[in-house]
Amino acid sequence: MPSTTLCDILKARSHVYQYLSPTPLHHYPTLSKLTGTETWIKHENHQPVGAFKVRGGLHLAASLTSAQKKGGLYTASTGNHGQSIAFAARAFGLSATIAVPHGANKGKVAAMKGLGADVVEYGEDFDTAREWIKKVALDKGGYFVGPTDEALIQGVGTYGLEIMEELPQVDVIIVPVGAGSGACGTAIAAKTIKPDIKIIGVQSVQAPTQQQCWKTGTMQQGGMATIAEGLATRVPFTNTQNLMQQYLDDFILVEDSVLEQAVYLLIAHTHNVAEEAGAASLAAALTIKEKLAGKTTVLVMSGGNIAPERLHHILTEYNNAQMD
Amino acid sequence: MPSTTLCDILKARSHVYQYLSPTPLHHYPTLSKLTGTETWIKHENHQPVGAFKVRGGLHLAASLTSAQKKGGLYTASTGNHGQSIAFAARAFGLSATIAVPHGANKGKVAAMKGLGADVVEYGEDFDTAREWIKKVALDKGGYFVGPTDEALIQGVGTYGLEIMEELPQVDVIIVPVGAGSGACGTAIAAKTIKPDIKIIGVQSVQAPTQQQCWKTGTMQQGGMATIAEGLATRVPFTNTQNLMQQYLDDFILVEDSVLEQAVYLLIAHTHNVAEEAGAASLAAALTIKEKLAGKTTVLVMSGGNIAPERLHHILTEYNNAQMD
Repeated sequence: MPSTTLCDILKARSHVYQYLSPTPLHHYPTLSKLTGTETWIKHENHQPVGAFKVRGGLHLAASLTSAQKKGGLYTASTGNHGQSIAFAARAFGLSATIAVPHGANKGKVAAMKGLGADVVEYGEDFDTAREWIKKVALDKGGYFVGPTDEALIQGVGTYGLEIMEELPQVDVIIVPVGAGSGACGTAIAAKTIKPDIKIIGVQSVQAPTQQQCWKTGTMQQGGMATIAEGLATRVPFTNTQNLMQQYLDDFILVEDSVLEQAVYLLIAHTHNVAEEAGAASLAAALTIKEKLAGKTTVLVMSGGNIAPERLHHILTEYNNAQMD
Repeated sequence: MPSTTLCDILKARSHVYQYLSPTPLHHYPTLSKLTGTETWIKHENHQPVGAFKVRGGLHLAASLTSAQKKGGLYTASTGNHGQSIAFAARAFGLSATIAVPHGANKGKVAAMKGLGADVVEYGEDFDTAREWIKKVALDKGGYFVGPTDEALIQGVGTYGLEIMEELPQVDVIIVPVGAGSGACGTAIAAKTIKPDIKIIGVQSVQAPTQQQCWKTGTMQQGGMATIAEGLATRVPFTNTQNLMQQYLDDFILVEDSVLEQAVYLLIAHTHNVAEEAGAASLAAALTIKEKLAGKTTVLVMSGGNIAPERLHHILTEYNNAQMD
C-alpha cells in the first residue's frame, strides 16, 4: 500500500465525521505564560473514548470489504487503540478481540469491555501481545489490525487537518509518538498544507525506540520501561519510520518525571486530565522552551485515559507547586 | 424584560457559535452500568473557559448597545461566570471588572486575569461581592451584569438545544443549580421541544436556597456552606425562580460528600475533571437511581474548574474504591 497523502486524509473525513465531531483547539493564556509560547491545545482527550485513536479505527472499519470484516477484528493494544477498535467494531456491528499486556490500565480494559469487545491479557508488553494476537487472527480467520496500518494514519490525520483549518498561523505542532500513527497523520496533513511548519515528535527517555531509529535511520528494537503506556513501544514500524524521516523536523525525548509534571500542570492550567502520553507534548514544550519563544504552538493532547491511582500519585507529588 | 423563550435561545445561537462550537454529548457504557440508566454526559467542561457560562457571556456582550458597553462590564462571580464575562469582554474589546469573594478558587482567578480582566476580592461570599460591585458599576458608569440576566439564560440555553438536537430520545436531563441560569435555559429549550421530558435541578444540602424557595414557593435567603462554589448562592432570584417553578419537574439536594464521590467516579469512568458543581448531576443520578432505571438520562457536566488541591483531596479519599 502506498504511503498516506493529504488526499487520503481528506477522504477519511467522511468516515470519521459520520461518528465524531471535530475536537476543540483551545488557547490557554496562563499556560502560554508558563511555556513562553502562544500555547494551544488540540483536545483529542475529548473524544468519546478519550483518545485520538478512535478516528483511525472508524476509518479502518469503514474501509474494509465484507470479506475482511466477516471474521471480526483482532488487535493488540495498551488501551487506547483497543478502545478505538472496540468503538469502531460496535459502530459497524463487528466482533472485536483485543489482546492487552498483563497489568494493562484497568480503566481502559473496562472501557473496551463496556464497548462489547473481548479482551484477552497476554504477554509482558504491547509488542508481545501484538505478535501473539496476529497469529490468533490468522488461525481464526479474523482481520488483524496492525498499530500503524495506513488506514489508521489516514483517519487520525483528520485532527491534523482540523488544526490547520482552525489555526493556519500555527508555527509548531508537538505530537506524542507511540507507534507513530498520530505523528505521521498530523505531519502529512500539516506539512502538505504549510511546508514551513515545524512538526516535533516526542517520546520518553524510558522508551526511546522510535526516536532512536528516527535519529540513526536504523530499525532496531530498544528498551521500554516508561510509565506512559501510550508511548510504550520497543519495536519500530517501517511505514511510520519512513514517514517520520520524511516529515518530522525534530524528535525529542523527555523524562517520565517531566511527563508527570506536565500532567499536573495541565490539571492546574486547563482542568483537563491527560494521560502521561497525552501530556508529552507539554513536557516537550517545557524542555525546548527557548526554541518556541515567540511562536504559536499547538500541543496535541492525544489522550486522557489515566488511571485514577496514577493521577493521585502525581497530584500528591506536585500539589505543593505554585501556579504562576 | 419578558421571560426567555425557545425563540430567544434560537436567536442566541448566532452569537454563541461565532466564538464557540457545540460541546460533545458522550455515552458512557461503564458509567451507565453504575447508574442503572443510559448515561450521557453533556460536556460543558470542554468549553474554552471550562464551564457552560461562556455561552451566556458572549450572547450578553453581543446584545449590548454601544452606550451600555462604553463603561465596561462589571460583575461578581465565584469564578466561572467571571471567566465567561472576561472571555466575552476580550472578544468584544471591552474592559471587565470582576468581584470575587475572599478565598476564591485561585485557578479561576488566574484564568480571569489571564483573559485580561481586573479582579477584585471583596466580601465573604458571592452575594456580598455581587451587591458591592453593583454599586461600584453604578458609580463608575459601567454595565453591571447580574447572575441571572435573561441574556445569560438565552445564551446558556443553547446547550439545552444541542442536547435535544443530538439525542431527541432523551427522557431526563439533570442540571446543577447555582443561580439557576443553566437550569432555566436547559429547561426552556428542552420542554418547549419535548413537553414530556423531565428536567431535574440539583443543589447541595449545604447550600439549599434555590431548592427551598422552589419547593415552598417563597423567596427566602438560606444557609450556604457548600464546598461547591458553583452551587454557592444564598439569595434567590425572581426570574430564575419563576422559570424553575414553571419548568422543573423535580429539584433535589445532595450532600457535599456525594459531590466528591461523583467527582471521583467521573475521573474513573470518563477521565474528565468535573468541579464539585459539575459533578452534581451524577451525584443526583446516584441519589435517585431507582427513578431513572430504564431511562435515557443526560447529566450536564456544567464545569470542570476544580482546584488541584481539592482534586487531590478527593482522589485520596476515594482512591481505594473499586471500579465496577
